[in-house]
Amino acid sequence: MDRDQLKTLLEDVRSGASTIDDAIERFRHLPFERLPYATLDHHRAIRVGMPEVIFGKGKTPEQIAGIAERLLERSPNMLATRVAREAADLVQSKIPDAEFFPLSGALRVWRDRTPQGKGTLAVISAGTTDLPVAEEAVITAEIMGNEVVQVHDVGVAGIHRLFGSFDIIKQARVIVVCAGMEGALPSAVGGLVSCPVIAVPTSVGYGASFHGLAALLGMLNSCASNVSVVNIDNGFGGGYVASLINRL
Amino acid sequence: MDRDQLKTLLEDVRSGASTIDDAIERFRHLPFERLPYATLDHHRAIRVGMPEVIFGKGKTPEQIAGIAERLLERSPNMLATRVAREAADLVQSKIPDAEFFPLSGALRVWRDRTPQGKGTLAVISAGTTDLPVAEEAVITAEIMGNEVVQVHDVGVAGIHRLFGSFDIIKQARVIVVCAGMEGALPSAVGGLVSCPVIAVPTSVGYGASFHGLAALLGMLNSCASNVSVVNIDNGFGGGYVASLINRL
Amino acid sequence: MDRDQLKTLLEDVRSGASTIDDAIERFRHLPFERLPYATLDHHRAIRVGMPEVIFGKGKTPEQIAGIAERLLERSPNMLATRVAREAADLVQSKIPDAEFFPLSGALRVWRDRTPQGKGTLAVISAGTTDLPVAEEAVITAEIMGNEVVQVHDVGVAGIHRLFGSFDIIKQARVIVVCAGMEGALPSAVGGLVSCPVIAVPTSVGYGASFHGLAALLGMLNSCASNVSVVNIDNGFGGGYVASLINRL
Amino acid sequence: MDRDQLKTLLEDVRSGASTIDDAIERFRHLPFERLPYATLDHHRAIRVGMPEVIFGKGKTPEQIAGIAERLLERSPNMLATRVAREAADLVQSKIPDAEFFPLSGALRVWRDRTPQGKGTLAVISAGTTDLPVAEEAVITAEIMGNEVVQVHDVGVAGIHRLFGSFDIIKQARVIVVCAGMEGALPSAVGGLVSCPVIAVPTSVGYGASFHGLAALLGMLNSCASNVSVVNIDNGFGGGYVASLINRL
Amino acid sequence: MDRDQLKTLLEDVRSGASTIDDAIERFRHLPFERLPYATLDHHRAIRVGMPEVIFGKGKTPEQIAGIAERLLERSPNMLATRVAREAADLVQSKIPDAEFFPLSGALRVWRDRTPQGKGTLAVISAGTTDLPVAEEAVITAEIMGNEVVQVHDVGVAGIHRLFGSFDIIKQARVIVVCAGMEGALPSAVGGLVSCPVIAVPTSVGYGASFHGLAALLGMLNSCASNVSVVNIDNGFGGGYVASLINRL
Amino acid sequence: MDRDQLKTLLEDVRSGASTIDDAIERFRHLPFERLPYATLDHHRAIRVGMPEVIFGKGKTPEQIAGIAERLLERSPNMLATRVAREAADLVQSKIPDAEFFPLSGALRVWRDRTPQGKGTLAVISAGTTDLPVAEEAVITAEIMGNEVVQVHDVGVAGIHRLFGSFDIIKQARVIVVCAGMEGALPSAVGGLVSCPVIAVPTSVGYGASFHGLAALLGMLNSCASNVSVVNIDNGFGGGYVASLINRL
Amino acid sequence: MDRDQLKTLLEDVRSGASTIDDAIERFRHLPFERLPYATLDHHRAIRVGMPEVIFGKGKTPEQIAGIAERLLERSPNMLATRVAREAADLVQSKIPDAEFFPLSGALRVWRDRTPQGKGTLAVISAGTTDLPVAEEAVITAEIMGNEVVQVHDVGVAGIHRLFGSFDIIKQARVIVVCAGMEGALPSAVGGLVSCPVIAVPTSVGYGASFHGLAALLGMLNSCASNVSVVNIDNGFGGGYVASLINRL
Amino acid sequence: MDRDQLKTLLEDVRSGASTIDDAIERFRHLPFERLPYATLDHHRAIRVGMPEVIFGKGKTPEQIAGIAERLLERSPNMLATRVAREAADLVQSKIPDAEFFPLSGALRVWRDRTPQGKGTLAVISAGTTDLPVAEEAVITAEIMGNEVVQVHDVGVAGIHRLFGSFDIIKQARVIVVCAGMEGALPSAVGGLVSCPVIAVPTSVGYGASFHGLAALLGMLNSCASNVSVVNIDNGFGGGYVASLINRL
Repeated sequence: MDRDQLKTLLEDVRSGASTIDDAIERFRHLPFERLPYATLDHHRAIRVGMPEVIFGKGKTPEQIAGIAERLLERSPNMLATRVAREAADLVQSKIPDAEFFPLSGALRVWRDRTPQGKGTLAVISAGTTDLPVAEEAVITAEIMGNEVVQVHDVGVAGIHRLFGSFDIIKQARVIVVCAGMEGALPSAVGGLVSCPVIAVPTSVGYGASFHGLAALLGMLNSCASNVSVVNIDNGFGGGYVASLINRL
Repeated sequence: MDRDQLKTLLEDVRSGASTIDDAIERFRHLPFERLPYATLDHHRAIRVGMPEVIFGKGKTPEQIAGIAERLLERSPNMLATRVAREAADLVQSKIPDAEFFPLSGALRVWRDRTPQGKGTLAVISAGTTDLPVAEEAVITAEIMGNEVVQVHDVGVAGIHRLFGSFDIIKQARVIVVCAGMEGALPSAVGGLVSCPVIAVPTSVGYGASFHGLAALLGMLNSCASNVSVVNIDNGFGGGYVASLINRL
Repeated sequence: MDRDQLKTLLEDVRSGASTIDDAIERFRHLPFERLPYATLDHHRAIRVGMPEVIFGKGKTPEQIAGIAERLLERSPNMLATRVAREAADLVQSKIPDAEFFPLSGALRVWRDRTPQGKGTLAVISAGTTDLPVAEEAVITAEIMGNEVVQVHDVGVAGIHRLFGSFDIIKQARVIVVCAGMEGALPSAVGGLVSCPVIAVPTSVGYGASFHGLAALLGMLNSCASNVSVVNIDNGFGGGYVASLINRL
Repeated sequence: MDRDQLKTLLEDVRSGASTIDDAIERFRHLPFERLPYATLDHHRAIRVGMPEVIFGKGKTPEQIAGIAERLLERSPNMLATRVAREAADLVQSKIPDAEFFPLSGALRVWRDRTPQGKGTLAVISAGTTDLPVAEEAVITAEIMGNEVVQVHDVGVAGIHRLFGSFDIIKQARVIVVCAGMEGALPSAVGGLVSCPVIAVPTSVGYGASFHGLAALLGMLNSCASNVSVVNIDNGFGGGYVASLINRL
Repeated sequence: MDRDQLKTLLEDVRSGASTIDDAIERFRHLPFERLPYATLDHHRAIRVGMPEVIFGKGKTPEQIAGIAERLLERSPNMLATRVAREAADLVQSKIPDAEFFPLSGALRVWRDRTPQGKGTLAVISAGTTDLPVAEEAVITAEIMGNEVVQVHDVGVAGIHRLFGSFDIIKQARVIVVCAGMEGALPSAVGGLVSCPVIAVPTSVGYGASFHGLAALLGMLNSCASNVSVVNIDNGFGGGYVASLINRL
Repeated sequence: MDRDQLKTLLEDVRSGASTIDDAIERFRHLPFERLPYATLDHHRAIRVGMPEVIFGKGKTPEQIAGIAERLLERSPNMLATRVAREAADLVQSKIPDAEFFPLSGALRVWRDRTPQGKGTLAVISAGTTDLPVAEEAVITAEIMGNEVVQVHDVGVAGIHRLFGSFDIIKQARVIVVCAGMEGALPSAVGGLVSCPVIAVPTSVGYGASFHGLAALLGMLNSCASNVSVVNIDNGFGGGYVASLINRL
Repeated sequence: MDRDQLKTLLEDVRSGASTIDDAIERFRHLPFERLPYATLDHHRAIRVGMPEVIFGKGKTPEQIAGIAERLLERSPNMLATRVAREAADLVQSKIPDAEFFPLSGALRVWRDRTPQGKGTLAVISAGTTDLPVAEEAVITAEIMGNEVVQVHDVGVAGIHRLFGSFDIIKQARVIVVCAGMEGALPSAVGGLVSCPVIAVPTSVGYGASFHGLAALLGMLNSCASNVSVVNIDNGFGGGYVASLINRL
Repeated sequence: MDRDQLKTLLEDVRSGASTIDDAIERFRHLPFERLPYATLDHHRAIRVGMPEVIFGKGKTPEQIAGIAERLLERSPNMLATRVAREAADLVQSKIPDAEFFPLSGALRVWRDRTPQGKGTLAVISAGTTDLPVAEEAVITAEIMGNEVVQVHDVGVAGIHRLFGSFDIIKQARVIVVCAGMEGALPSAVGGLVSCPVIAVPTSVGYGASFHGLAALLGMLNSCASNVSVVNIDNGFGGGYVASLINRL
């Protein structure tokens, strides 16, 4: 219930078109529980340029296709993550302009490509095995209207490539860094720049990496104060937070 | 090697005082390690308006006072965190305008109060026992030039206070949320706003909170995509990341 | 040994049909170990309206079918959980009115549908991937004689749906809430109602959800005092405890 | 804002005592954020007979005394947990009828002793070192209007005492069981009764009890389906949940 | 209710001094819950030569002294573990022949020294810092009637001392091995002998010993098949299990 | 034995003061560090009636068959654990009297069935899903010459069956108890008997059982002092330790 | 920027083709980040005799083959670890002298076999199931120019074999020890020799080995001071560190 | 060496075919299992220049002083770690040339200062709070005869200092790196040099550093292959391993 609806209701009360008891009942049933949240939710979608995202894992191909079609009825763009090939095929048979990215399992319909970020958003990854997570971040940042620059495979063994890309990196307004194993890359990047760094630990590694725990703890304990962290393998989250920052 | 030393070296090359091979050798041994980083570090300090911060835990009062004095020689402002009363007394005896905040143990010299943030920065905490962490975030954000608004004690038991402060919250450009126990507040806040939310888990709680682990995991797994997380009890980190975002 | 057997024994003592030493011997070998527990167990089955439940995981189709048939000899209803399709097929070939629920793997024979709950029992889930666990809770609550209302997909991203269903929720006498990831939904629900809430953490999530650990810790640390917790993915347990409460 | 206040406001609109714009403004500042929750919160307090509880840990004596006095202005009863002796002394100097329980650190003002439970509520503990947690549960259950029966020191080494108290236990409508170390007592009790059992793991133990983790995991994995669990050492939570159940 | 009481009750039935209904009632209230367990418990005490042991941690000096006096009324021997100096002083003021062992905090009254073990019981420790735990094992084994031989400080750094004591070790019927840090000593001992080895991990160590977790896991994963394990720092348990084995 | 002792011994051999056989004997008994290992190992095999056991997991069928054949050349009996069906088939094609137990994956050649235990050895399990581990314990205990009695499916839900088998249990000289989930059965059994109890946690369960961790911690924290523990799912270890005890 | 580019730049300075300010600017933007690291990296490859190693896990056969071919263009030797059979087939079809080791999944091209180690390097493993990890260490050490001696299957059950190989072991300049389960072998070896021991925990084991955690913790807590540790299953790392040491 | 070989050897001694010295030599080299331990231990002490080290934690001042005096009777040097001030005072009152280092709690008697390392050994630490651990490493390396260079306070915030000391670092034959928090410094150092790096995680940090676990995991997962790791806070171990390497 927005201001206009509220005004109408109050005018109805004043004019007698609505009894006071009716008005109370309408307040009791509609307002706070339903309206504000839904409204707010709706407003957010419009402002952010991004409706609900489909988390594909654990959903059937039919469910994913159904939700995708419903979302596209009220939004030009759509993103689904962690989608299996089989589900992607079904969606693409119904929505021909849906792109599928098999590395990350992302599925994207990207019709409205209005730029929304104020500057470039960089996505950096430590090794080739971190690419699926980085790709998810890139795809998310793109559909949210950002110009994305990418630097990959710049872990400790190839740190000179990071320095070789320093000009690109230092112009970014916000940086997403994806790394597994020890997770030290966000600290290295964070020490070089003064913009916010979103660290995405990946489950890449073996043994005492404990499926990304080592990288996660490393990033949380980063000596670089400009680093904040999202969940393990959460490339989507990294891209999303960075996109919000780049719109400011 | 600073700019002057580099200039001298190049002038030596031009004048023939140094052969090219000698110059290459001097480059190979000295330059890159030292100059660029120090320079960059220096630039960052100026640009960010915040030199190195002193982490007071594990340092003697004498060490803290000594570092504080050195830092103030080249910077108008100074921040130290986790400082014991005894150390604060020593610093204040030498630097009369140093403020001490016993709740969080922060110690601040705040001479240059030039605003640097573009909008308001909100710091929200779940319970009164989260206040020390929230205070650290507030003090950090203030010394970094932000207008800070605060909302406290708005955990689940008092969630109506969060709604009561909704007007304030929704105007913030970036929000820091400090919460212990289950750590659900950042998700609740993140679901209401569209700006970035920096979540700071606190070690408040008992039993299966495992010194903040429950809050940390809860925040990392937040359903709200605009949430990123810093270390447990790291109010400084939360305030720092939020300040960088508010400058964009 | 029930009251009648005990009476007979004592009469034998009085009449001399049994010597005192014989009676002592019979007490020493039989009575306490066997009788009270079995009796009590039997009584409980009748009173609770629910005999032993079959935990299907790790049992062969033949074992499950065999136990199911034996249980149905002395009870009208039967429930098996975590049953594979193959085992369900075998049981259904022998017991035609057995229903199979492939989402949760529950297998149910529900012949006696006498209501036993005093009010409605609500089962709420946070996301579509939590549905298998929620379904297990619903099926358990139904076979235990409850009128069950369901509200699904009301996590943070869709919290307005929770408010939209508030009228339903607030009429429940007891609520089961299933949620993975950060596990914050039970706190949100618990803060809205004054009835007992049984929280069921699910293993839904990835990365630092650690197979439900994050949700479990979040729920155990809930700020809402009316929340108690059962094992991860234990929809059966949630439904069972809630059913006992709804009979009071 | 309750129904009466809303009615008054609407009548003011109708009568012209309030302009529509004024009314909108009053709605915008007060209504949805504040009214529904506050009302609900207020209603809950009256219905549950228990306003907010003070969690004393991490609060100063002055804070505790201040909150206690405010709470008692609008409620006859007050409960604070984890209160240090020093804080209790201060509160008792201001509120003479405040009782302090040093074992658990509970502090209680119990003026309205109207029974609210439908039957007896049993609190059982495994060993003498579990008594502080059990006491917190007992005090909570009492102030919430329950008739509480207690059985203590009935761990494995003294399980016969449990059986000796079986008559008492089996008459309870709901049972709180506090146990540390291996945490097996709730299963033992749960297997004997058909009512709900709220298990409270305690941090009692050493070595591989890991501050209550062993007991917590044991209880979550209980073979007895009528057991649900609250946080380690959370006697308050156990007593609270059990009280809600006993009111049904 | 022991055999004599049962006999009396049955004689009353026979003689008519008790009606059958009275007898049933007396059975219903007393017998099974109380008698068998208590009897069994009592029998065990006599057979094992060891009544209940007092776990001193978390008990007041007065509680410990009170329990000790009650236990000594029906048993010649008494053992308390983890007793603070202050409590020991109080007990010794009342029971002059109580021995206090400050290293382990054990407190012992040892009046009946009848040998009960069939052979020697060896207690081995890895380092001097493991001595408190080893002492608790030795004291327990002694009061349970065993001839105890001790070998200390035979960790990896001094493994030759283990071999130097090999003659002693190989004659033991059962061995208790206490070790912290990596916990490898039980495997080394277990590989040399064919008798049962009870491993007691100690919390000695630092860093990644995680308060005995490393030693515990090492012992549980021992390649030597004759090793079983008790809780961290549980010297009492190690001595107790070994004593039972040595009586066979 | 240092260099001087060695020299003296050799001089005695040369001078005839010691016969060669005497010298060999002195070597065999004293010089602890020496050849003994092999010898001792050999002696142990003969004495214990059990040579090396094959741990089948991670070994190829050919490796298992090869080792089995070599072992049977110097021993009448052979045991392999965790053997896949395919490997068992290969072994049985070469060793026709090899028995395969598909539940546990044990493979046994049992030619010498001389009894070696002094009494009966009981193996108890909590649920049908614990049977594979229990079977491994039974097969191990049998091949080591024990008379084994078995009681299965006596967890909390069927604890009366434990009491119904009490006569059998109380006659055992040593008991192996296998249980998953909360792992409370060893405590229950340990509280009823005075003989040693070897607890084997199993990985049966789900959610917060964490693959047997809950059961393991529960057993390590057992209130019953006669319980010691082996590794999760280590039925072999439980049977082995119990067999050694039963030979004493 | 390599040496030639630097030379050109300096010659431009000398010749006046570049002003000093221009040169400074070019230094500021390009030089340090790129040149020194690349150079250093290149130098390291030559000096260490080992270019980048391919971590095969998570890479497609095509990726592995492509990287392998590129690496062999500038280096005679190549090593890939964790390579699947399918990828190995593809590489071997293109590079016929590539050896594949299916046990460990290592793939090696070894054309330059110049010895580089100063002495022998020993690789010891505890059981046959540790062989894959040990093989990876051996292959790494060989391609890095070491003479490798191997001792396998010398865990506690066969410790005499360790002593039987003592002559070999004690001549090694550095030792790699691979062990799972309890991980005690590095301590045993470390106590016998005075050279550095590199411990490699393996994920061999079950139950409370927790995929190598028990072995890892055991090794980190080793009483033998000459032991340092690499990641679980990291045979490559063990062989690499040992090779560097053997070159000193 | 089996019985036959032993017999042959002894017969050779008797017949004079072997001299006694030859026989002793054959015993010394072959009979692996033999007396060696003590001897070898002795040899190692002489060769390594370092007898047993006293681990002071958990030892009384009297114990430490007693052991120190005994060790100094057979060795010119002595080292004790984790010694409290009180114990140091007692030792210094008896051994006036004992140095005490309060930061690390090390206590050293350093009479024989013969160099034993082949090159310089570097000890690097990340922050001032890592100094106690670094100091322990330095003191250990010095008493073992190494020339030690130190670089401190070179974590991410001050990484330029690392580069500024690059000339020193790159000349080291082996490097010990001490770091807490995220533990990334060993990777950074390891990527710059080609010599072995011994990483010592420290318990410095807060929150999710979990007392050094984050640093430990980070170091174990280091991308730099020349890094191996010792226990948390184990400066002694780091210095010891590095010293052995520097002697090669």
